[in-house]
Amino acid sequence: MRYLSQIFQPVITIPRDAVIKNTEITCKSQKLLLECGLVRPTSAGFFTLLPLARRVVNKLENLVNQCMEEIGAQRMSLPSLTASKLWEKTGRLQDVGVELLKVEDRHGKKYLLSPTHEEAMADLLADIGPLSYKQLPLLLYQISNKFRDEPRPKHGLLRSREFSMLDAYGAHTTPACASETYDRVTSAYRKLFDILQLPIHRVSAPSGAMGGTLSHEWQLPADAGEDILAVCHKCDSIARAHNESKVCDKCASETQYVNSIEVGHTFVLGARYSAALGAHYTARDSTPTPIFMSCYGIGITRLLAASVEVLANDKALRWPDAIAPYKLLIIGPKEGSKEWSMHGWEEVQTLGQELEAAGLAGEVLLDDKHSHTIGRRMKAADRMGYPMIVVCGRSTTENPPKYELYVSKGVGYTKPVLLARTELITEVARIAGNGNIDVTVKDSKEKHVVEN
Amino acid sequence: MRYLSQIFQPVITIPRDAVIKNTEITCKSQKLLLECGLVRPTSAGFFTLLPLARRVVNKLENLVNQCMEEIGAQRMSLPSLTASKLWEKTGRLQDVGVELLKVEDRHGKKYLLSPTHEEAMADLLADIGPLSYKQLPLLLYQISNKFRDEPRPKHGLLRSREFSMLDAYGAHTTPACASETYDRVTSAYRKLFDILQLPIHRVSAPSGAMGGTLSHEWQLPADAGEDILAVCHKCDSIARAHNESKVCDKCASETQYVNSIEVGHTFVLGARYSAALGAHYTARDSTPTPIFMSCYGIGITRLLAASVEVLANDKALRWPDAIAPYKLLIIGPKEGSKEWSMHGWEEVQTLGQELEAAGLAGEVLLDDKHSHTIGRRMKAADRMGYPMIVVCGRSTTENPPKYELYVSKGVGYTKPVLLARTELITEVARIAGNGNIDVTVKDSKEKHVVEN
Repeated sequence: MRYLSQIFQPVITIPRDAVIKNTEITCKSQKLLLECGLVRPTSAGFFTLLPLARRVVNKLENLVNQCMEEIGAQRMSLPSLTASKLWEKTGRLQDVGVELLKVEDRHGKKYLLSPTHEEAMADLLADIGPLSYKQLPLLLYQISNKFRDEPRPKHGLLRSREFSMLDAYGAHTTPACASETYDRVTSAYRKLFDILQLPIHRVSAPSGAMGGTLSHEWQLPADAGEDILAVCHKCDSIARAHNESKVCDKCASETQYVNSIEVGHTFVLGARYSAALGAHYTARDSTPTPIFMSCYGIGITRLLAASVEVLANDKALRWPDAIAPYKLLIIGPKEGSKEWSMHGWEEVQTLGQELEAAGLAGEVLLDDKHSHTIGRRMKAADRMGYPMIVVCGRSTTENPPKYELYVSKGVGYTKPVLLARTELITEVARIAGNGNIDVTVKDSKEKHVVEN
Repeated sequence: MRYLSQIFQPVITIPRDAVIKNTEITCKSQKLLLECGLVRPTSAGFFTLLPLARRVVNKLENLVNQCMEEIGAQRMSLPSLTASKLWEKTGRLQDVGVELLKVEDRHGKKYLLSPTHEEAMADLLADIGPLSYKQLPLLLYQISNKFRDEPRPKHGLLRSREFSMLDAYGAHTTPACASETYDRVTSAYRKLFDILQLPIHRVSAPSGAMGGTLSHEWQLPADAGEDILAVCHKCDSIARAHNESKVCDKCASETQYVNSIEVGHTFVLGARYSAALGAHYTARDSTPTPIFMSCYGIGITRLLAASVEVLANDKALRWPDAIAPYKLLIIGPKEGSKEWSMHGWEEVQTLGQELEAAGLAGEVLLDDKHSHTIGRRMKAADRMGYPMIVVCGRSTTENPPKYELYVSKGVGYTKPVLLARTELITEVARIAGNGNIDVTVKDSKEKHVVEN
């Protein structure tokens, strides 16, 4: 259990048209995460994740681990620095060189700060190889910071120069074997995005600079997105908008264009990297054959910002329940009030412990800013978007004491429900166990906590 | 539950005096981790952590998180790249410049790949500041990859150029306040090293290039260590050996010199970084005052290798129970044997599930190399150093079936205990719950599994 006053969360107000560290404030997540003290730029495109954002990233990483382990993927870690000569061999040093941050060591050896690790993975497979066909398929992944020297970093964590990414690599004998792995990873992606309850669509994509044979982008429609999707409401199809025509490929109806954020990508690569770097396997007939590769990525810090883009409003953060920094905030009585003297701060702390024990271990935050009114603290809580808020207000002076439970719904909160202590604990445990999908609220009329 | 044959673990044999990626094989952990398929160098001083090593690092990170959160530290993440001008301001760009890997972006702005983050942290405190004295002390930490351009990387993960590190930073008003935080972190270190059951000693250290007022090194005696400790057996004191004299400072007896690995460091820094970078707090009388800082580090990948240095022998890995890649291996019967037909592979898998349910979730590995004899697989298991090994051998044909339980002890295993299924599950759960400290073994005579 943590106390709100102890959280390192430097809250600031950003004036309209502000330019922070040479970067314009251009979108909602960038502004809110900075103003609410979750993220802080150090220079253009580089960000410090402050403790609340770090908690969100921890939760995203745990979910990614869980979904990847379930499909049999094995986590490992490649170095951030890849020898430049490997990228020279695959031709990418020239192709994307200007986007690479480069390093030379004291002996003059050249490295790059990897934006992705196809070369490093192919080199590893070459180094340990040749594997036997019996050892394939293999599915390996890592979660680590990647680097890209964006010409114009923008939109905060949506387009930064150092970012956390899941990258996974499949090694196969045949296209059919790769296709089976591709489907498994697709199911892991779907599970992850289902847990986050985000409407992320898989759309066909050109393989582009990666040079593969099949590829999909995973797109989350949002105003701040830099990609354009063509949505057809008639046949329910979604595709990348590639040309001037707004006519749906499938049913010839007119489509609607929406902006979208690419949060993930999946590729069947084929043998481009393995052939260039000598990553072979030994086939059944003993022939050394280039490994057929696939690769997969999800931008973790980008996904954090993207979820804020679609769930928050201009003034208040909102989160997928599964990754909110804390699941529940308790607001105690104002110091000196009748309920303060009758109910007291120790009771609030005990309630916090009981809620932690009811399935919310490590997820309860106590608002100990007693000198502020409940209204003021409620307004601040609304801005942070805790999935649940418990207020120990006037009704805690009743016998038995009653607590107000607010549950996040859309951009507001449900009208508070008054519950006795045991009812409260049961209800909170139920919601925490289910996710916030079908929460039973006696009076379902929505109420915006902060009336503007 | 995982199957041994599916683990990506490229096992190799390294000839004596081998030079791998321009680096000599000079110590036990370097050789064993490479031969057993846990770690793989990509070039001098850079390493890929393969899945089993990554599991060890995950466990170390979780323990570090647990110990740091318990003392109220808050995790965050600073970018790997720090603007060089910050290091210019504190004078360290010149002092340690040759050890830094440097990067220039496409606009010519200079960065360095941070080996540590005192400058970045002070700059953050300056950027959000001035904090009020009421907001201090603060204790922030991160776990991330750090970089150091070692002139001669050696000893594998003990001295590499990219390594995982815990680094923590305290912000205080006064030396007394810093001292209190210093004690809290000291207690977290002690707890972590107790959990690992490693004899790590805190010894006084010169503050050196960090420029502080108080500092300790955390030292683990081991032959591969590059530091020298003077151990006095009379007064039980341990100190860094600083001069030619072997006489103990405390009791004037003769000391013994031992090699040692520095696995952690703690510093009271004072205002060196905060004054240079303008990180102030507002004192009670409204005066802006430089923040009094402290900092703390633990080398996570170094700790992995160091624990192997002290626990393994030349031929077999051994681990602290808390961080072994898997806690238990089950070796099933050889295909075609009497026990194979009577007991069967499905029974072994069910046993695995039951053991996972008995407090070993995710910690049971099934040896599915049925075609190999039990003896051969036992030898391979000994080399990996699983804390517990269950063999489904000849006694599984008895009624009821009996299983052999081996428990890691020192560099060998205890003599096997024969247990019926429910006894086995109870005993394994007990050992997993207690750690492997006071394991009751009916016949306590030690037996080396692999007789050489």
